[in-house]
Amino acid sequence: MGIVVVGSLGLDTIQTPSGRVDEVLGGSAAYFALAARHFAPVHLVAVVGDDFPAAARTALTHPELDLSGLEVSPGRTFRWEGVYSDDLNTRKTIRTELNVFQSFRPELSAAMRRSRDVFLANIDPVLQRSVLTQLESPRLVLADTMNYWIVNKRDELLLTLKRVQILLINEEEARQLTGEPLTHRAARAILTLGPETVVVKMGEHGAFLLSRGEYFACPAFPTESVVDPTGAGDTFAGGFMGALSRMGRVTDQNLRRAVVYGCVLASFAVEEFGVGGLLRLERSEALRRAEALTAMTRVSLDNTARVLR
Amino acid sequence: MGIVVVGSLGLDTIQTPSGRVDEVLGGSAAYFALAARHFAPVHLVAVVGDDFPAAARTALTHPELDLSGLEVSPGRTFRWEGVYSDDLNTRKTIRTELNVFQSFRPELSAAMRRSRDVFLANIDPVLQRSVLTQLESPRLVLADTMNYWIVNKRDELLLTLKRVQILLINEEEARQLTGEPLTHRAARAILTLGPETVVVKMGEHGAFLLSRGEYFACPAFPTESVVDPTGAGDTFAGGFMGALSRMGRVTDQNLRRAVVYGCVLASFAVEEFGVGGLLRLERSEALRRAEALTAMTRVSLDNTARVLR
Repeated sequence: MGIVVVGSLGLDTIQTPSGRVDEVLGGSAAYFALAARHFAPVHLVAVVGDDFPAAARTALTHPELDLSGLEVSPGRTFRWEGVYSDDLNTRKTIRTELNVFQSFRPELSAAMRRSRDVFLANIDPVLQRSVLTQLESPRLVLADTMNYWIVNKRDELLLTLKRVQILLINEEEARQLTGEPLTHRAARAILTLGPETVVVKMGEHGAFLLSRGEYFACPAFPTESVVDPTGAGDTFAGGFMGALSRMGRVTDQNLRRAVVYGCVLASFAVEEFGVGGLLRLERSEALRRAEALTAMTRVSLDNTARVLR
Repeated sequence: MGIVVVGSLGLDTIQTPSGRVDEVLGGSAAYFALAARHFAPVHLVAVVGDDFPAAARTALTHPELDLSGLEVSPGRTFRWEGVYSDDLNTRKTIRTELNVFQSFRPELSAAMRRSRDVFLANIDPVLQRSVLTQLESPRLVLADTMNYWIVNKRDELLLTLKRVQILLINEEEARQLTGEPLTHRAARAILTLGPETVVVKMGEHGAFLLSRGEYFACPAFPTESVVDPTGAGDTFAGGFMGALSRMGRVTDQNLRRAVVYGCVLASFAVEEFGVGGLLRLERSEALRRAEALTAMTRVSLDNTARVLR
């Protein structure tokens, strides 16, 4: 039945040390869907304006990507513009135009309501909850969020979190959400808010996963050609949830594998501007990177007892 | 024959969100030696003033730690004072008094000159080279450095690096040394400066190792009780080099194991103020953490080809 993703679609203007692109396809739902479709069918629920370019729609057109939930509203599409620092670790938002996204009220079709796996990308926690309410029997509920909702809609976010199984969040957001200044403690505290598993995304440092009794850390795939980090987190989410949904059962080992696929998909996303890296991704290359990444952390401590005096 | 370490010894005044300690034993050589001694005998070469407290000397007194190279000069011991931010990720230096450390000229005894393994802790690159010149037939040469030398003694540092086999460095320093804003590219660039292996220390994100044809990443041991990060990098170096020296041969697999021990030893160091965590370290607990850390990154991608569509 595939994965329902509810999030933003937009036109991004991005400047990084590698160059600049103007009004290219972006938004959390775009990155997620273009990553997750490599693993499972994806039903995209989002809104764009009547100015949404044909090229952007074409970029989203794939056999595994159901666009029936893509609403076209009169008005302008969501737009974002940002400039990255030289080391790509910080970015400045130049402009955010919500446009039609401001009145986004996700409505799931009858078929989608029967979907069991859903990704609630970074949108208003009230809308995230309205999606959950529409689902008949959700099985795998993943969500993302951001500073804005943590600060401005904290109570609503906490209500939503009670119904989320796996929260994906970055380090700063985890600390902000919990008030714990140390990331690992923040992650532990999130497990008391509802989610049974939390995945902390750490950008170039990879990600770690924490649930009761399980801790797994995975480095980022060490690509030396980082062009544009935009959407890396949503791409991670797409690879992670795509793999988990495809594998079917949420076991400790499958969660670990899903983190690896999340890191691998993200490595393709950052190598080109916008969704370019995801559009050109070759399945064989993704498999190669997944195997390579697991090899990069493999170590056995034979004779441990003879190393320490 | 053990490991010769040449570095600083001092009295640190440290304030973190957990509290404050005044004039406790610190310095790169102290952290390194107290970590490395768990793996191999250590010969410490450093200078202190005639005010060096008996308690600090007692903390360094262990059967595996040769203090014959600890020079006591008339005058005051090196002192440093720093205050950490709430998330422990940044610190402000309140005061640095070089005192007797300013005129430190390391002299190795005849016995030490025959040592084959040496750690050149973060001191003037000219002094680092003078130590190498004194060694008869060095086998394993590791070095650390810092921003100050990168900026102010760059040419001397580059000369020293030509004779260093393994450089340990943090992310910011790696970028500063090479002018490459991306850490992985910076690490790659360091391999053109002399070292055949570089270990990039990433604090709470662990460390990665790069050499020609080898890349290994290891997360930090996820301790949730971080009291004082001072000396974590030198402790990592002690665990890393201690294990490597003890294992004897520099193979890819031994380098990986050494990184794990570096991360494990560092996790003890940060759990208490100053060198307290290293003094109370229990060998059995270190072994347990090493095994646990390797388990925390273990993943196998069975059926990979069936996960991607």
